Amino acid sequence: MSTFSIKAFGTEAPTADLKQLEVQRRAVTAKDVEIDILYCGVCHSDLHTARNEWGGTIYPNVPGHEIVGRITKVGSDVTKFKVGDLAGVGCMVDSCRECESCKEGLEQYCENGNIQTYNGHDKHLDKQTFGGYSERVVVDQDFVLHVPENLDLAATAPLLCAGITTYSPLRHWKVGPGQKVGIVGIGGLGHMGVKIAKAMGAHVVVITTSASKVEDAKRLGADEVILSTDQEQMKKNAGTLHFILDCVSAQHDINAYLSLLKRDGSLTLVGAPEHPLPVAPFSLIPTRKSFSGSMIGGIAETQEMLDFCGKHNITSDIELIRMQDINQAYDRLLKSDVKYRFVIDMDSLKNN
Amino acid sequence: MSTFSIKAFGTEAPTADLKQLEVQRRAVTAKDVEIDILYCGVCHSDLHTARNEWGGTIYPNVPGHEIVGRITKVGSDVTKFKVGDLAGVGCMVDSCRECESCKEGLEQYCENGNIQTYNGHDKHLDKQTFGGYSERVVVDQDFVLHVPENLDLAATAPLLCAGITTYSPLRHWKVGPGQKVGIVGIGGLGHMGVKIAKAMGAHVVVITTSASKVEDAKRLGADEVILSTDQEQMKKNAGTLHFILDCVSAQHDINAYLSLLKRDGSLTLVGAPEHPLPVAPFSLIPTRKSFSGSMIGGIAETQEMLDFCGKHNITSDIELIRMQDINQAYDRLLKSDVKYRFVIDMDSLKNN
Repeated sequence: MSTFSIKAFGTEAPTADLKQLEVQRRAVTAKDVEIDILYCGVCHSDLHTARNEWGGTIYPNVPGHEIVGRITKVGSDVTKFKVGDLAGVGCMVDSCRECESCKEGLEQYCENGNIQTYNGHDKHLDKQTFGGYSERVVVDQDFVLHVPENLDLAATAPLLCAGITTYSPLRHWKVGPGQKVGIVGIGGLGHMGVKIAKAMGAHVVVITTSASKVEDAKRLGADEVILSTDQEQMKKNAGTLHFILDCVSAQHDINAYLSLLKRDGSLTLVGAPEHPLPVAPFSLIPTRKSFSGSMIGGIAETQEMLDFCGKHNITSDIELIRMQDINQAYDRLLKSDVKYRFVIDMDSLKNN
Repeated sequence: MSTFSIKAFGTEAPTADLKQLEVQRRAVTAKDVEIDILYCGVCHSDLHTARNEWGGTIYPNVPGHEIVGRITKVGSDVTKFKVGDLAGVGCMVDSCRECESCKEGLEQYCENGNIQTYNGHDKHLDKQTFGGYSERVVVDQDFVLHVPENLDLAATAPLLCAGITTYSPLRHWKVGPGQKVGIVGIGGLGHMGVKIAKAMGAHVVVITTSASKVEDAKRLGADEVILSTDQEQMKKNAGTLHFILDCVSAQHDINAYLSLLKRDGSLTLVGAPEHPLPVAPFSLIPTRKSFSGSMIGGIAETQEMLDFCGKHNITSDIELIRMQDINQAYDRLLKSDVKYRFVIDMDSLKNN
């Protein structure tokens, strides 16, 4: 299969810094599009994978799954896109397309395992997939999204992971007008959750451990803020929330948050703490509550989310960085020192 | 308020045996019915409360919330029942009737706390309620159930708690034909879960730690049995169940059972282990699973369950005991040495 070389940024070992590499992309096949990457968001999963913290990383690893750019080439059977279109790629570049989940448009839950944008298995080249920390990417049109033209493009990149990860559960658990919705943890995911839940018409309640985030939560659109370290506030708000989106990836006391739910409410994890979280049976049984989890969204739903964000003028709050600053960005990410998402300006790689 | 004395069996301290006592019942008021108790089931909650294991027990305590009998008296405004009718009383004898849950017919989730059949607060007499280990009970008609005439009456008693506790979540999570439903733990609750899920049309899969229960699970109606101690069987059945009803009240590894669920499945606790159960985020997130809890059912749903059991000829497997044997029965209950529910023949109390 014909390939071409591109510049990318990646790592060759768990403990090595990211640095400039050369990797191969396949030439577009009939159903592929080639995208000139303009911006790529930086997700915590990038760091976990680069450093093999979840195991299974194949090196070299090129992270990045919040990709936006413009189409530069289309295969002969491509109908969804034309050269010059804005396009986005999220966490998946393919799936089995045959299982029950794929047939329902829930490719994220592909029963044979979807093909991740990086560190997945590229069926065409029979090697690991390389992500968006790179000049260009070639993806089957079925896994490429249309990106609204009215949004700031750099700030749109994080919608492809942080946006859909929060949009999908808010939709699945039917958040809308007349509901009080809690968002726990204001970071890359949580700040998107606030904006999206608000645009869906819910009364948004941010729950945070840090008093310093109260003002910012309100600026993002929160109607109320609960300081979870204040027992009085937690008690006063017990049993008041219809749904809670939990965006915290550190260990935390789930039972305290479950106490805030109304009967039949669900607390849904989208952050992924490393260790099991102890759940008291009496946090669930007395009012039929649920503790659940959710992962990104399907391709159709991701397109729906992008259209929704275009309509409601929603983007991420970002800090634009150069590709060469990625290692320092990772250090800051580990300290949650970013409001609220790093996005890489890919010009810095191309012109280096 | 006018009262009358009855014989009952109860306890005066956490460490004391149950013994014969005399307690007061109110005379029927306009909306009350008086029931001559014929049989009363023995629930593990009876033992927990008698021994103050959950705290808050007021002594003397008379347990029993699986009550069946015949109406012997009706108040002037009673319309639902007449003297001579079969009647049942479950875990509740009243609720606030004004909150959102009560208005939706979910009195079990009354936001002001429903009035439990024993160790609740009797509004009429301003003292603790006394349960069904007694000759007669007086209850507001709104919390009294019609009992099908076609069932064995002694074996019907456990439907009032064990029956509705399993029926309600199976209905709430929409179990039915075309679904594979797991029942974990074959005891008082679990054996009812098997019979009811089967009658609802589901393919029933019992999951048990003990090979000795395989045959009995099949006799109860299970289509399949998974031995949870056999890693091969657990692996083979991963991702196959639509819903799991977890009836185990001992500590157990929830993550192992969650692995058996299909995407979007819920594992619902009705047993109540004492300590928090560790739940791994990756048991929930990758296929949007839920870990939830459920508690008995509302009055309307309890009537629906009794009618359903009448129609499908479902009762509990019981061991009939005398009231005087209750302390030995509690000892056996602690060893799970009962197939599958003790029921007290109340003649033994009346004729003593």
